[in-house]
Formats: sequence, C-alpha cells, structure tokens
Amino acid sequence: MIFARFLLAGAMAIAGSPLLADPLPSWNDTDPKAALLTFVESVTDPASPEYVTPADRVAVFDNDGTLWAEQPVYFQFLYAMERIGELAESDPSILTSDTLKAAAEGNLEAALSGGEAALLEIVNVSHSGLSVDEFQDNVAGWLDTARHPVTGRPYRQMTYQPMLELLSYLRDEEFETYIVSGGGIHFVRAFAEEVYGIPPENVIGSAGKTRYAVIDDVPTILKDAGLAFIDDKEGKPVGIDTHIGKRPILVAGNSDGDFAMLEWATAGKGARLGVIVHHTDAAREWAYDRNSHVGQLARGLDEAPARGWLVVDMAQDWKSVWPGR
Amino acid sequence: MIFARFLLAGAMAIAGSPLLADPLPSWNDTDPKAALLTFVESVTDPASPEYVTPADRVAVFDNDGTLWAEQPVYFQFLYAMERIGELAESDPSILTSDTLKAAAEGNLEAALSGGEAALLEIVNVSHSGLSVDEFQDNVAGWLDTARHPVTGRPYRQMTYQPMLELLSYLRDEEFETYIVSGGGIHFVRAFAEEVYGIPPENVIGSAGKTRYAVIDDVPTILKDAGLAFIDDKEGKPVGIDTHIGKRPILVAGNSDGDFAMLEWATAGKGARLGVIVHHTDAAREWAYDRNSHVGQLARGLDEAPARGWLVVDMAQDWKSVWPGR
Repeated sequence: MIFARFLLAGAMAIAGSPLLADPLPSWNDTDPKAALLTFVESVTDPASPEYVTPADRVAVFDNDGTLWAEQPVYFQFLYAMERIGELAESDPSILTSDTLKAAAEGNLEAALSGGEAALLEIVNVSHSGLSVDEFQDNVAGWLDTARHPVTGRPYRQMTYQPMLELLSYLRDEEFETYIVSGGGIHFVRAFAEEVYGIPPENVIGSAGKTRYAVIDDVPTILKDAGLAFIDDKEGKPVGIDTHIGKRPILVAGNSDGDFAMLEWATAGKGARLGVIVHHTDAAREWAYDRNSHVGQLARGLDEAPARGWLVVDMAQDWKSVWPGR
Repeated sequence: MIFARFLLAGAMAIAGSPLLADPLPSWNDTDPKAALLTFVESVTDPASPEYVTPADRVAVFDNDGTLWAEQPVYFQFLYAMERIGELAESDPSILTSDTLKAAAEGNLEAALSGGEAALLEIVNVSHSGLSVDEFQDNVAGWLDTARHPVTGRPYRQMTYQPMLELLSYLRDEEFETYIVSGGGIHFVRAFAEEVYGIPPENVIGSAGKTRYAVIDDVPTILKDAGLAFIDDKEGKPVGIDTHIGKRPILVAGNSDGDFAMLEWATAGKGARLGVIVHHTDAAREWAYDRNSHVGQLARGLDEAPARGWLVVDMAQDWKSVWPGR
C-alpha cells in the first residue's frame, strides 16, 4: 500500500514536471513563443552567461491592449461615463456641460468630441470626491455587472489568455511582474490582483491627486480632481524609476505609448527583451495599429526589427485569445 | 559516519531554531520588546484571531531618526553641502548666492539661515543636472568616505542596531518592510539595500522632478530641479497609498512628521502597531523631542498613550544603539 502510493506520487511528480509541462499552451509554436522561452531560460539558468539574479528579474506590462482589450475605447472611460450617469441620477445638477451630458447619456462620440479637456472633465467628475477605498469598491462592483459593448463578455474576461500564461510563467521563474499603465493606478488595482495575480504594490499608473484627511474621525485617502502623474510615453520610464528603482529586463506593450519604456529597458546591460503585441486579429479581437485612435502603433512597428523587439502577431501567434474557452 | 552527520545536523537545527533564538538581542527586556514580540506572534500565528496573511504584513519605517540618526542635521543635507563644495571646485561660478557660498564652505548655520527657500536652493543645485544612476553612485561614494561630524563614524554605521534587528525579525516573519522617508527617494535607495536589506522598490521618499531623455543615444532618467513630491506629514499616507496601495499594519517613526501615517495605519481594522522612537539618550545618541529643529516630536508624545502607540525610550529600552559594538 505504502509502496503503491510512493509509485503514484513519483508518476505524478514526473507528469507535473516543469521540464515537460508547456508553460505557454495558448501560444502557437511560432517564433515569439520560442523567443520568450529562450529568453527566460537564458536569464534563469545559473550556468548561462546571461544569468540574472531573481532580485533583478523585473518584468513590466502595459495594461490596455497588452493584457486586456482596449477597443472600442479604454474600458476605464466606459466606466467613467457610466459612473457619471449613475451620479446624475441622484443629482442631475452635476451635468454642467455638454460633455458631461453626453457622458451621462452614454454617447461616446459626443463625449469624446471635446478632446483632451473633455476627457479630463469626465475623469475629474467620475474619479474624485470619494475615498480610494470607495472608488475601488465602485470599480469592482461595475466589473461585476458591466458587459463589453461588442463582445458582451464581462470585462474581467476581456483579458488575453496567452498573456495571463506569460505572467504566470514569469512568476514561476522568479520574475517580479508589474503593470505600467497609462490608465489610473487605483482603477487598475481594483482588479489586477484577482485577474492578473499582480498585487497593488506592483501596479504603476496615471494618478489623480490624492489627499490625506481625517473625516468624522476616520483617517482617509481622498481622491481629488486634477492629475498628479501621467504614466504614458516618457512618463512610463519615470514611473518605473519612481516605483521600482530598477530597470526592467522584460517589457511588453502594444502602442507607441510604450515606446519609451521599451527603449529604456532594452538599452540596459545584459539580456533584455522587448515585446510588442500587434493587433492583427479582426476575427477574434481587433486589427489596428498606425491609424487607431486608441493604441496607436507606428514607430514601434517601424523600429522593432532593428531594435530586436519581438512583435507578436495576434492572429498568427496566439492559439486562443480569451480566457475560459 | 552518516549517522553522526545526521545527529550533528539535528543538533544544529535545534541551536538555530527560531523558538530558542532571541530575534531582538539589542533590546532590553522592557515593555516595548515584549509588545513587539507579542504583536508579531499574534499576526503570524494561524490559530490567532488576529492572524494576518503574509501578503498584508506590511511594515513601514521612517528613516531619519528612526533607522539612523538625524543630528546635528539630516545627513542628506550634509551630503548636499559637500556636493556643492565639490561642484564649486571645478566651477566656482555656480555659487550665485550667499546660501550656496555658505553651503560650499560647510557653514551649516549660515546655509540654513535662509529657511525653506535656502534649503530648496541647496537641494536643487546639489541634486539635479545628472542622471539617477550618476547621483546614486555619487551618494554611495560619499558614504564610503564621509564621517559624521560628531561621532566620527561612517554614516552607514550611524544606524540603530535594535532597529536593524527589528527589520530582520519582521522579514523572517514574512513581513514586507518599507522605508517611508521625508528624505529623497534616490538618496535613500543609494544605501537602503546594503544597510537595511530594503530593496529600491520598497523605498518611498520625497522626490525631485525627473525626466526621461535619450542623450547621445543613451536612454537616461535625469534629475531636474524642483520638487515632484514631499513625503512628509500628510504626504506619508499619500506616498504609501501611491506606492503600496495597502494600509500598513506596523508603522515606526520618531517625529510628528510621522504622525499622519501612524494615525492612518493604526486606524485600520484588526491588529495594528504604532511605534515611536523617543530620543532620550544624550549619553549614547542624542536627547531631543518637543523643541528640536529636526525630528520635532510633540503631538506624538501627547497622544501616544491614548492611541496605544508604543513609545520606545532609547536610553531605557535599547541595550546597545550602534551596530558593531
């Protein structure tokens, strides 16, 4: 009996061996998968000349368009519009402009027609005047019920299964995984741990102003109107330096908003890997790059070959796109 | 032979057992040591009603006056003055004000006489116009050779041995330890890992403006003049929220600059511990509180008993102060 259990345990250990299991089952056997596996092996094998100590295995990921979808517009913006509608139900007097009225009506085109000033107005009204805890509860509640306007899927299932596998694989190989998002730091933290396994301290993002105050004897972090930090383009390396203080060895993005952090990270000494997710899959996801109003990708595509960055062709390189299929 | 080695290994395991070793040997057997041990045991014992999962065992420490000394003035300011002197040797034209001349001469009183504006001028000139990497190399080089003006000790040995033991003890008990300093984030990162075992990503501090730029084809993070964030007083809970996104369960400070983070952290649900290091030891360190120009502590002392915060009396509660004695 004991002997039989030993045998069984041995067989299970072999079946579960990392040498045999495929850590990236949703990736096709094309070049990007091989390049990812080769890179990770080269920096984790103590006998490799490119070996990197676990403390320096820092991998950063853009969120919108890299870990989850970003069409027809950033999901955080859809949340902001719905929140304005919700707030206006109890107090219609908050709708002080055409932009806010359009947002409350869910009229995306009209809401966005005011450009950056309109965007900031919508974010200010929807993302301030409450505590960080209240805000994150509100976002989590929205994610529980809201559905994507095109696919009908809950947003938590608009993530990319191949990227979820890459995150897990890297953590299994003692990488520390971070999100470096142009989206809001508190917004992303509301789901990053549950959805990506990335805890709050590993989320870097754009930030509205916050303030500490004791309200009715309760110490609170309050979200105010106005921006404190924009974690996009040249802001991404700055955000990484501020939060991590180390130069990542692996960076994944999908747009020219990620160019600076790709450039900075891959210019470091030793083995480095830059990854660009190229949206080529109109059938299963979306196809866009140079002329897209979100996730515009031009310089990254032009310069990736010379810089040795990996361009992942979603249609060709991913066996499946969405989780749970 | 094999049997003997097994016996030896067993004996060594017992001698090194955490059940028998004192994790805080430089603390006297007074109340604070007992309170620290009791708190840590209560949040790490899975059978305890106050058990906290390792992911939420966040402990934050002020630096100046809590982990290392801060008299006669913050060490970063002494560095800034010496750096201005060094810069002026190759280019005396940088000394465009009486403040900067006083700093270059090492005249502390005159340099500080201009108040906050003078302080900012000294920090701007000494902490900008170079890359983060260059700055941190410069700080590390200074720490290699500079000596404290009163004790003659290298600054890396102006840390408090009992606090080094507390940091190690907490990490052994699966706490994540952070620094939350009013001092500069890049300054503190230049020595925090070596001296405290706290890696760059766990250092939060005040920050000068930084900027990403490609200079002579080299992607670089540059330090500019001006302040981006002041991690002091009400800024400390904000800094913790931005960097960690979790409310700490243990906070240690020594001045009213730490009051807000003590208040915020200890107001959270479940077991919490606030710790104030009270400088009472004129013989071995310094004795100061309410009327000090650095590390002023008044409200914290007044309110600690009612708030249940631990006040560590350095003279009474610490067996030794400095490391390596």
